[in-house]
Amino acid sequence: MLDATWFSEAQEPSGSAFSLKIKRKLHEEQSEFQFLEIYETEQFGNLMVIDGCTMVSTRDNFFYHEMMSHPVLFTHPNPKNVLIIGGGDCGTLREVLKHPGVEKAVQIDIDERVTRLSEIYFPELCESNNDPRAELKFIDGIKWVKDAAPNSVDIIIIDSTDPVGPAAGLFCADFYKDCFRALTENGIVVQQSESALLHMHILQEMRGEMRAGGFNHYQTVFFPQCIYPSGWWSATMAGKNAFTAFREQDAINKGFDTVYYNHEIHKASLAMPEFFKKAFA
Amino acid sequence: MLDATWFSEAQEPSGSAFSLKIKRKLHEEQSEFQFLEIYETEQFGNLMVIDGCTMVSTRDNFFYHEMMSHPVLFTHPNPKNVLIIGGGDCGTLREVLKHPGVEKAVQIDIDERVTRLSEIYFPELCESNNDPRAELKFIDGIKWVKDAAPNSVDIIIIDSTDPVGPAAGLFCADFYKDCFRALTENGIVVQQSESALLHMHILQEMRGEMRAGGFNHYQTVFFPQCIYPSGWWSATMAGKNAFTAFREQDAINKGFDTVYYNHEIHKASLAMPEFFKKAFA
Repeated sequence: MLDATWFSEAQEPSGSAFSLKIKRKLHEEQSEFQFLEIYETEQFGNLMVIDGCTMVSTRDNFFYHEMMSHPVLFTHPNPKNVLIIGGGDCGTLREVLKHPGVEKAVQIDIDERVTRLSEIYFPELCESNNDPRAELKFIDGIKWVKDAAPNSVDIIIIDSTDPVGPAAGLFCADFYKDCFRALTENGIVVQQSESALLHMHILQEMRGEMRAGGFNHYQTVFFPQCIYPSGWWSATMAGKNAFTAFREQDAINKGFDTVYYNHEIHKASLAMPEFFKKAFA
Repeated sequence: MLDATWFSEAQEPSGSAFSLKIKRKLHEEQSEFQFLEIYETEQFGNLMVIDGCTMVSTRDNFFYHEMMSHPVLFTHPNPKNVLIIGGGDCGTLREVLKHPGVEKAVQIDIDERVTRLSEIYFPELCESNNDPRAELKFIDGIKWVKDAAPNSVDIIIIDSTDPVGPAAGLFCADFYKDCFRALTENGIVVQQSESALLHMHILQEMRGEMRAGGFNHYQTVFFPQCIYPSGWWSATMAGKNAFTAFREQDAINKGFDTVYYNHEIHKASLAMPEFFKKAFA
């Protein structure tokens, strides 16, 4: 039993829960879209919770933000225009802008309150928000992609919540079709794809929808993410065309700091567990 | 808050907890050494808990047992005699005996009750206990290694609980010194080494003790382990001499089933996160 000094996210379908010991609740509000909470934890720094799900902690967000950005950016041969759908905490944006070749990074989160709270409680994630290459929009990303010019974006990073609620439309063929159209020749979309231990059905459905949206080339990266269900997360890349070779030399010489990612972790994250390989054989 | 329908392991130093929804408690007893509990969970099958710590679940134990055995066995050039210290649930023993070259595998757990309960509640982990190459002893492993003939064991797998209580002596230079002496020329010891996110101090202390015990060659493997703190676990191999090349071709042609491990996962598990590389630079 865990008492009220813990924040718990119970993931009922998997019968598992993850909890962090909290010092106090710093903030809560019902935004136009979701219920947002911020806690100060004992050991994980600050914690953002959206609709009851742990989203970001100070201590361990580096796994997710680095693995949502650097693998796809070092896979694309020359990414200049990057679109982030969701990602309102701005941590992915910060990682993307570490790449000097990126000329423009547009972050579109439907909920401006997520970013405003991140600026207060996760200022380190927002330190690149004023980069001249960054543009933050608080509008409907699905509609934006639908209206985007064809062949205009090199990489689309879908940094969303789970496929329920406001994010459900981000896991559908119609949306992927619009992504496909908006992407340039070597364009890649990458999306957080849940836990391969707990959510293989989501990973499989997602590829089915991506295929229906026009994508035929996939790579899934696996990485630890302590505060997400099972502690083991994934992101799936879908290429408009076959993937070109990972720019390993550029990753070796990246010239910016990371906590988890490096060129060896990049290659390692692509290794498919035996059960995963069989499921997608 | 989680009520009494959940079993929770609260890891106080890290301010985090992992919980599984339970159907009922199947068994509990105070053995001569530890407090043992068995639960039937909603989604993870059966769960064994020792002194309040989650040890084994039906659903996710494959990560740990495969990664404690196959990487070290495919790293050693020709392992014939394997010693398992701890490992009373017999899951590691089962994986070790999948290797046809292994001629003898001795499992030494101080607590016979762990094995007797595993036979009842995790029969699949015990399916190789009657293999003629297997020998199960319920005695003090530390003393056994001290008394072992020099150059008599190819691999020692230390499949223990955390470095407190009965297992504390398994994380000490004196014990490693005895392991070093008992190992053959290309001998390797491998030990579970906790979470690199939460327990870097343990990983660092362990290498210090291993070094004091005579070992100068290390490889750490990283793998998911949902029910252990942070969901991300590690095992550290220490070689009596420099490691020979991973027997990749043998791993490709392994001829036995695994759920997580394969030759690509083997190589991937050795990739060092950036922060880990810096800590051990």
